[in-house]
Amino acid sequence: MSAGINSYKTDLREIFFTLFEQFGFEGVAGQAPFEAWGPEEAKAVLQETYRFAKEVLGPLNSTGDREGCRIENGTVITPKGFKDAWQKLYEAGFKTVGVSPEHGGQGSPMMLQVAVEEMLCGSNAAFNMYPGLSYGAAELIGECGTPEQQKKFVEKCLNGTWGGTMCLTEPHAGSDVGAAKTTARRNGDGTYSIRGTKIFISAGDHDLAENIIHLVLARVDGAPAGTKGLSLFIVPKLRVGADGSSGESNDVSLGSIEHKMGINGSATCVLNFGENDKCLGELVGGVEHIGMSQMFKMMNGARIAVGIQGLGLASAAYFNALDYAKERKQGGHFTKWKDPSSPRVPIIEHPDVRRMLLEMKAHVEGIRALIIKLAMHTDKAKQLSGRDDDQAAYHRGQVEVLTPLVKAYSSDQAFRLCAQAIQVYGGAGFCKDYPVEQYCRDSKIFSIYEGTNHIQAMDLVGRKLGQAGGAHFQQFMGDVGGFIEANREHKTFGTEVKVLAGAQEGLMSSAMVLLGWSQDPSKVSLIPLSANRFLQMMSEVAVGWLLLEAAVLAEKKMEALSASDPDRAFYEGKKWSALWYARNVLPTVEQSARLLVTEDASPMQIPDAAFAAPV
Amino acid sequence: MSAGINSYKTDLREIFFTLFEQFGFEGVAGQAPFEAWGPEEAKAVLQETYRFAKEVLGPLNSTGDREGCRIENGTVITPKGFKDAWQKLYEAGFKTVGVSPEHGGQGSPMMLQVAVEEMLCGSNAAFNMYPGLSYGAAELIGECGTPEQQKKFVEKCLNGTWGGTMCLTEPHAGSDVGAAKTTARRNGDGTYSIRGTKIFISAGDHDLAENIIHLVLARVDGAPAGTKGLSLFIVPKLRVGADGSSGESNDVSLGSIEHKMGINGSATCVLNFGENDKCLGELVGGVEHIGMSQMFKMMNGARIAVGIQGLGLASAAYFNALDYAKERKQGGHFTKWKDPSSPRVPIIEHPDVRRMLLEMKAHVEGIRALIIKLAMHTDKAKQLSGRDDDQAAYHRGQVEVLTPLVKAYSSDQAFRLCAQAIQVYGGAGFCKDYPVEQYCRDSKIFSIYEGTNHIQAMDLVGRKLGQAGGAHFQQFMGDVGGFIEANREHKTFGTEVKVLAGAQEGLMSSAMVLLGWSQDPSKVSLIPLSANRFLQMMSEVAVGWLLLEAAVLAEKKMEALSASDPDRAFYEGKKWSALWYARNVLPTVEQSARLLVTEDASPMQIPDAAFAAPV
Repeated sequence: MSAGINSYKTDLREIFFTLFEQFGFEGVAGQAPFEAWGPEEAKAVLQETYRFAKEVLGPLNSTGDREGCRIENGTVITPKGFKDAWQKLYEAGFKTVGVSPEHGGQGSPMMLQVAVEEMLCGSNAAFNMYPGLSYGAAELIGECGTPEQQKKFVEKCLNGTWGGTMCLTEPHAGSDVGAAKTTARRNGDGTYSIRGTKIFISAGDHDLAENIIHLVLARVDGAPAGTKGLSLFIVPKLRVGADGSSGESNDVSLGSIEHKMGINGSATCVLNFGENDKCLGELVGGVEHIGMSQMFKMMNGARIAVGIQGLGLASAAYFNALDYAKERKQGGHFTKWKDPSSPRVPIIEHPDVRRMLLEMKAHVEGIRALIIKLAMHTDKAKQLSGRDDDQAAYHRGQVEVLTPLVKAYSSDQAFRLCAQAIQVYGGAGFCKDYPVEQYCRDSKIFSIYEGTNHIQAMDLVGRKLGQAGGAHFQQFMGDVGGFIEANREHKTFGTEVKVLAGAQEGLMSSAMVLLGWSQDPSKVSLIPLSANRFLQMMSEVAVGWLLLEAAVLAEKKMEALSASDPDRAFYEGKKWSALWYARNVLPTVEQSARLLVTEDASPMQIPDAAFAAPV
Repeated sequence: MSAGINSYKTDLREIFFTLFEQFGFEGVAGQAPFEAWGPEEAKAVLQETYRFAKEVLGPLNSTGDREGCRIENGTVITPKGFKDAWQKLYEAGFKTVGVSPEHGGQGSPMMLQVAVEEMLCGSNAAFNMYPGLSYGAAELIGECGTPEQQKKFVEKCLNGTWGGTMCLTEPHAGSDVGAAKTTARRNGDGTYSIRGTKIFISAGDHDLAENIIHLVLARVDGAPAGTKGLSLFIVPKLRVGADGSSGESNDVSLGSIEHKMGINGSATCVLNFGENDKCLGELVGGVEHIGMSQMFKMMNGARIAVGIQGLGLASAAYFNALDYAKERKQGGHFTKWKDPSSPRVPIIEHPDVRRMLLEMKAHVEGIRALIIKLAMHTDKAKQLSGRDDDQAAYHRGQVEVLTPLVKAYSSDQAFRLCAQAIQVYGGAGFCKDYPVEQYCRDSKIFSIYEGTNHIQAMDLVGRKLGQAGGAHFQQFMGDVGGFIEANREHKTFGTEVKVLAGAQEGLMSSAMVLLGWSQDPSKVSLIPLSANRFLQMMSEVAVGWLLLEAAVLAEKKMEALSASDPDRAFYEGKKWSALWYARNVLPTVEQSARLLVTEDASPMQIPDAAFAAPV
């Protein structure tokens, strides 16, 4: 077994296509507030990120997994090499590509930033948790903090001087955040004394930065129960002086770290705040009881980030499996399998291996398109705000409806596709000599944290579908419909565009069914029972649409190329991704619509005792 | 984290139902060759096995995973406690329940044996690899060996004195067994000198027994290429004297062990045979070139055993998730989720948790029924052989067609359902404090070893469908059809029986489509492209049928009970398993049939270069 498999692989050509050709980076860059950015700058950043991902983060992925984190003298010690990678990451500025210049960043469109993040996550998901959480904390303080708080915390959390966390979960409050018991006592001087225990805190402690800035949800004495009584506090691990220096301990202690299935290089901590009643916090933005809505600003970004994690690992799994399938020779060609003297062929020649690879390729590209599209909407909303508020609202609305899809569909598919990559390798894939078994283990958490995928589904059907009087969802459907109308008779993809139309109709009728249930108290349990299915249907429509859109574009581009142009193979690949998905996945949307309308409530009807016989 | 989670849980009531009520154990037991067995004896064995699984094997499951195997002085050292468990296992006789008395066993029907095995695998899949391989080796020698070989090896491999293995895979020959390069040179005295390297040898070395009997596929000098030139050899680790004692080393050396995603307590070995040209083997049965067909006798049993492994872990995952869901309180009832003062409820009250649990329950029970049915066919074939050869052939035929379903469907679903169990737990499920993340890791190998699931699918469509002129498949369809006809108008399940009828028609038409392709050279690649889909469809028809059969029976039984009978809840549970599966899974069979007929060959049409752009 090689120590430190240098496993990260991607195809920049495909990322360039999605960014520049499909989603028109140039239509966003070059204008305020992204004046400094054009395609050449973006390409240079992506190439540099890929080099960093391959050379620095990739080799630390398997070693970090095996070494894991440990506690020494009350502090988490991260795996060997993480500290060096942390310094290099911040020196190169990869975490601040999309940060506004006022906070020391390069101010790129989010479209570019998500492509950068895909490579950072894909090459080392565990490592990237530390800077990821720091980024989230900085972003939240930058958006919700007082000017003093912004000045004091944001830049240091963005440049690697300090780390950051988000502390929501408590032993008896995971998905049920509102049940949090951590308390905050007003000290009369503007500070609060924080007391309580938080669990599952990613990057909750480590040795990478001089201080860690925790964002802690707590309840001020006398505040109401539930999420509405929660306030958000900045609680540094070490107290920060007026001059911005980190000083004495703030009575935040590390209880323990979890031993997990994956992301072992990422410390998942139990943190005890105020065991000696000396833990001081300051209120984010100086306002009580709005902690949950403040946290949600970070949470939305975090949910998109989880979708990117899923994409990163699924893509890395695909390219590793692809290379293995091209190199590994075994068995004769399937047309000659009975002839033992026929030459052994690379396993990519075997039909089922090709099927698995194309399935992975189609999903990875479709999910990448969905994520970059979401980022494009974010950029356009920012760009158009104040200039064309209707259009800005449209773009913001698309970010709202697409966020749960990106988080849940990407994470569910990532785990499934990483397992499929193991299957491509066969027994070798189950061994730690190859990276795919780790990708599979690492990716399982993505469907759970930052709101389980069922919470995403409920966010979609319970909140996003009806948002703005249903306008956001209708605009999404209108965009899909526009593509269908324009391409229904397309010479190459017409048949598949009609399959998309059928899927879209199935989705629409299912949305109407959900609406009906919401108005009938006897059927309201059908909504949570069907929410995951609806999210998957909508994700499949979105991914199928974007793959077909890419294929139509790729065909045009290919027609303009000479027969010997090496780019033809790339565009040809886009065509097959779309065709495979449209033929094998899109038809299941109508099937799901048929299932949904049967109103099966069996999970509610089975008595608890019938799940197992009395012992 | 607790050391050694005592995690194994099952519901004997459900196993009793499947064995005694659904598949009529009494119709098999009590007659030759199972005269000694009746329901009371069987129940006692199952209760005793469950106690052993809970008290002895269960607690060693997580400790074995963490400790793993190591090499000391050229020998594998198994995790702490395995040696003691090995002794207790053989003292209690759990591995010989189904072995014929002539080899020292208790001679039970296979129906009982598979139920025993489910608990041994489910409580500790890694540990059970060692006795499992020993059993397989003994079974093969018992069936194919000369009388002297049987006398010398079988009983000792069955009573724990010696271990056993099957050595097929080589570095460049995994699924492609026929490419094996290991050689056997005739020594002129009836012995052969074996030379070669075998990899991925489960239980290839360990400290549990005084000797290990390897069954090694090798090519005698001058034999033809491919599988037809392979012979099977008995190659003990230590040479066995005429008196049956283990003596000097037989030049079999341990190269290394693999570091894996799961089943870490099971040593997966690289073995070098004859590095010093002192490795002697004897030919199984004394006949050359029939090694592959001999090995297949072991292989078929091994494939069923893998199906049982999948069932064992999926079932253990279900019962653990169920108990967690009943105990863990979080969140208010879904009808009151906006009221933070509503009482916290056990998460089993949440609709999506109930949906996940019922999905697990239905699959586990359906797969258990499929496995016990297969075992019943084996028993009846044995019982009727020579008395009613037509009926015996029917039963043997059903074993043939059901074996690939049991191996592939059970293993695929096991991995998926164990991952779903993690989702029921949420973040806790990702941690090693609970057993489900290990079940998930352990179960991934089941879709790969003993013939990948694609090999199972090709075995089904390429061999089993057409076997005996298609009779085996037609008899399967006839059995399903008989149930449909008898229950089409059933007062409770009529609607779902009609769904089964639709699924069966979809399966039949798909079989015809496959037949058509096999006769058209231009479409032959569609067979491997669709084989996995067809296997899944047929498995779903089989499982849906058996669940509905159980439900019809359970309803009758329930009607005979008083309103307060505690057994009512159990029968009620059988009803909901069947309804859920029929409403949510069976309809997808027709959908799959519609996909299959579209003849999508995109994985063959995409050029290799289009999988990724040229670098």
